[in-house]
Amino acid sequence: MKSEIIAVGTELLLGQVVNTNATFLSEQLADLGIDVYYHTVVGDNPTRLEELLQLAESRSELIILCGGLGPTEDDLTKEVVAQHLGKELIQNTEGYKKLLAFFETTKRKMTENNLQQSQIIEGGTPLPNRTGLALGTFYQTKSNAYLLLPGPPSELKPMFVEQVRPLLEQQFPSEEKLISKVLRFYGIGESQLVTDLKDLIATQINPTIAPYAKPNEVTLRLTVKTSDIHAGNQALHALEEKIQARVGAYFYGYGDDYSLPQAVVDLLKEQGKTVTAAESLTAGGFQSALGAIPGVSQVFSGGFVTYSAETKAKLLGIDPELLEQFGTVSKECAEQMAIRARQLVGTDYAVAFTGVAGPDTLEGHPAGTVWLAVASKEGVETKECHFTRDRSAIRNSAIMQGFDLLRKQLLRKK
Amino acid sequence: MKSEIIAVGTELLLGQVVNTNATFLSEQLADLGIDVYYHTVVGDNPTRLEELLQLAESRSELIILCGGLGPTEDDLTKEVVAQHLGKELIQNTEGYKKLLAFFETTKRKMTENNLQQSQIIEGGTPLPNRTGLALGTFYQTKSNAYLLLPGPPSELKPMFVEQVRPLLEQQFPSEEKLISKVLRFYGIGESQLVTDLKDLIATQINPTIAPYAKPNEVTLRLTVKTSDIHAGNQALHALEEKIQARVGAYFYGYGDDYSLPQAVVDLLKEQGKTVTAAESLTAGGFQSALGAIPGVSQVFSGGFVTYSAETKAKLLGIDPELLEQFGTVSKECAEQMAIRARQLVGTDYAVAFTGVAGPDTLEGHPAGTVWLAVASKEGVETKECHFTRDRSAIRNSAIMQGFDLLRKQLLRKK
Repeated sequence: MKSEIIAVGTELLLGQVVNTNATFLSEQLADLGIDVYYHTVVGDNPTRLEELLQLAESRSELIILCGGLGPTEDDLTKEVVAQHLGKELIQNTEGYKKLLAFFETTKRKMTENNLQQSQIIEGGTPLPNRTGLALGTFYQTKSNAYLLLPGPPSELKPMFVEQVRPLLEQQFPSEEKLISKVLRFYGIGESQLVTDLKDLIATQINPTIAPYAKPNEVTLRLTVKTSDIHAGNQALHALEEKIQARVGAYFYGYGDDYSLPQAVVDLLKEQGKTVTAAESLTAGGFQSALGAIPGVSQVFSGGFVTYSAETKAKLLGIDPELLEQFGTVSKECAEQMAIRARQLVGTDYAVAFTGVAGPDTLEGHPAGTVWLAVASKEGVETKECHFTRDRSAIRNSAIMQGFDLLRKQLLRKK
Repeated sequence: MKSEIIAVGTELLLGQVVNTNATFLSEQLADLGIDVYYHTVVGDNPTRLEELLQLAESRSELIILCGGLGPTEDDLTKEVVAQHLGKELIQNTEGYKKLLAFFETTKRKMTENNLQQSQIIEGGTPLPNRTGLALGTFYQTKSNAYLLLPGPPSELKPMFVEQVRPLLEQQFPSEEKLISKVLRFYGIGESQLVTDLKDLIATQINPTIAPYAKPNEVTLRLTVKTSDIHAGNQALHALEEKIQARVGAYFYGYGDDYSLPQAVVDLLKEQGKTVTAAESLTAGGFQSALGAIPGVSQVFSGGFVTYSAETKAKLLGIDPELLEQFGTVSKECAEQMAIRARQLVGTDYAVAFTGVAGPDTLEGHPAGTVWLAVASKEGVETKECHFTRDRSAIRNSAIMQGFDLLRKQLLRKK
C-alpha cells in the first residue's frame, strides 16, 4: 500500500509554519503498515494543486491532503479535489448543525463562507471534527483513496487517531505491521552511541535501529516489520539485549514520552522518598520539570530559587562569609545550598545548582561552569560540570545533570 | 525566480524527524526574494530521486536538495544528482585535508566511504562545511541551478547563512526583497484577532498580513515585497497603524524572538524595580522563565516554590488556619503568598500562583482553576482564571497570565 502526504498552504512555503502534520501522519501510517513515499507541500494555488493530484494518482494509492478546509478564500483543497473528481460539494447535516450551534453559543455572526466548513465531497465519508468546525472527508475511487484533513494539528491529530485509523484499518487491512521500541539514553553523545553500535546499525535490516539525538539525550528506535507480533517482539528483545550489553550503562527508560524527570519521580515514589531543590542559575527549572509530572506532590512539596548571593543568604541562611571566601560558583556554595534546603524543607534529598548561565562570565568563571550537589542523610555528593553552547542549553544541561545525579543515588539504594 | 526544496531521507517519511530544514530554507529564500513553490520529501531511493529531479527541472529554476551527503550507504544525493547531470564526483582538496585532520585529531580510523564526504560534483562550486565534514555543492546548468546541502540542521544552517546566501545574492540578484515585521499579542485569541482585522486581511495584497497562533499568544507577520526599502517600510508602518488602532490593547512587542517575560524584564529595568515569586502549581516555571533572560539578575534575585500546603506554611509563614479555612486554591491564599514572598525577599513586586494543574481536581476545584496575585506597595491585585486543556498548557497559561498581570501594573506606572 503506497501513500503520499500533500500539505496545502502558502504559509508552509514561506517558512512561517513547520510541517509537523506530515511527521505525525507518517508515524501513524508506518504504524498501520502503510508506506509513505512522498511528502509534498504546495501553496494555496488551484492549478498547482490540480497538477499535483494528477501526479499523486499516478504513483500512490492513498493520497492524504491536509490543510485548506477552513472558511477563508485561501481554503481551496476541498473545492479543487471535488472538481478533480467531477463531484459536487454538499452540506453535511451533522456538521451544519454543529456550525450553527457554535455561532449561537459564541453569539457571533455566521457568514456565508463559514458554510464551506460543513461541506463534504458528494459520495464521500464525512469525518466529524471534535476540536474544530471543518469536516474532513474520505473518498474512494476504483484506483485511489483520498483523505482530506484539517490543517491545525489540534484538529488533525484527534480526527486521525479517533476516526481515520479505524477507517483505514478496516479499508486497507495490512498483514505486516511495524512494531517499535524506543530506548532512551542519558550521558552519551549520539556519535559515541553510533560508534559503539556501528556494526549492529550497519547489519540490521529487520529490525532496524534509528538513533536520534535530542537536547541532552539520545534515543534509539528499534523497528521491526512483521506479520507475526510475537516473533516481532522477540526479534526486538534479542536486538535490545545486544544493545544493552554495550551501552546499558547510559540507558534510563523506554518510550517516546518518557523522560529523565519522570524516571526520577518513579524511583522516589518506589522508595517512598522526597526531594527539594535550591536553584541558582536554573532559577526554578528543575522544580518546574518536577511540577510537570502528574502526582509529583507525593515526593515534592517545594523549594527555593536563590538566584543572587543575597537570597542564598536570606532564604537559605548560608553564611555570607562562606560565599565571600569561595564565591557563589563553588563546590562549597553548592554543598551548603543542598544541605540547607534539605534541612529547611525536611526532605530525604535536596539538589542544588549554582553556576554561570552566561553569556557573561561570573566571578572569573566562564559561562557553562556549574556546580551541582545532592544532599541526603549520607552526606553531600557534588559534581563540577562545564557545559557549552548558549544560556538556554547550559541551564537545561544543568537541570538534566541534576536529575541524573539524583537518579544514580536512588539506583544505588535499590 | 522559482525554486523548490527537496529533502532526501527515509527517516523523514517514517515520521522520525521533522523537516525543519524546509522551513528554515523557505524563510531564508523569502528573505532573498526567491519564491518557493514546492517542498518535497523523498526516501533514500535513487529511482524516485531521479524522477523527482526530472520533474523539478521542468518547473523550478533553483532546486535545493538537503540530506544524503554523509558517508553511509543511504547517502546517495550527490551520486544521483551527478549521474543525472552526466558528471563525475571528484575529490575536493580542501575538504579532503579537513577530513584527514579530523580523523587524525580524533584518533579514529578513516574508512573508504568517508571519502564520499569530501567529494563534489565536477564543475560545481564546493561549499565548505564549518560544522561538519560533508561538503555542499552549487552547480549551474543553462536552465537550472542545483544546491546540495547537508541534512543536519547544525550543518545546513551555518552553510546557508555564511556561504549560500552571498552566493545566491550574487548569482540571482533580486530587485524585490521581502521586508517583514512581526507584531506580538497576548490576551486575544487568533479567531478574535482575525475577525477584528477581517477586512484588512482580505484586502491586503502587499503588504500581506499572516496571523499565527502560538501557545498563549498570537503573532501577526506583516510582509511587503518591494524594490524600495524606504517605501516598503512606510507601507508596513501605515498598515501597522491601522492594526494598532483596532487591537493595540493586546499588543506587547515586536519581533520573532521577543516574549512576554522579556517585555516584563525590560519594564522592570526601565523603572528600576525588582520582582520575586511564590509558585504552587507552576512550581518554578515563572521564575525559570525570568531566569532565561540574560541580565535578569538586575531585577530578580530569587523566590519560592511552595507546591504543598506544608511549604506554604513553612517557607512563606502562611497561617495554616487560613489555608484550612479558604483552601490553597483561593484568593486569600494567593494574596498571602504574594504578600509574604514580597516581604521575605524585599522586592517591589511579588507574583503568586496557586491552583489546580490537573489532571485531577483539587479541594473540589476542577483542573485549570488558578488564582494569581501581584503584591506591591500599593496592595495586592488578584485574578481568578479558568484555563482549559492539559496539565502542561494550564501551567504555561498561568505563567503567562502572571507576566501579563505584572506587565499591566508596570505599564500603569509609566
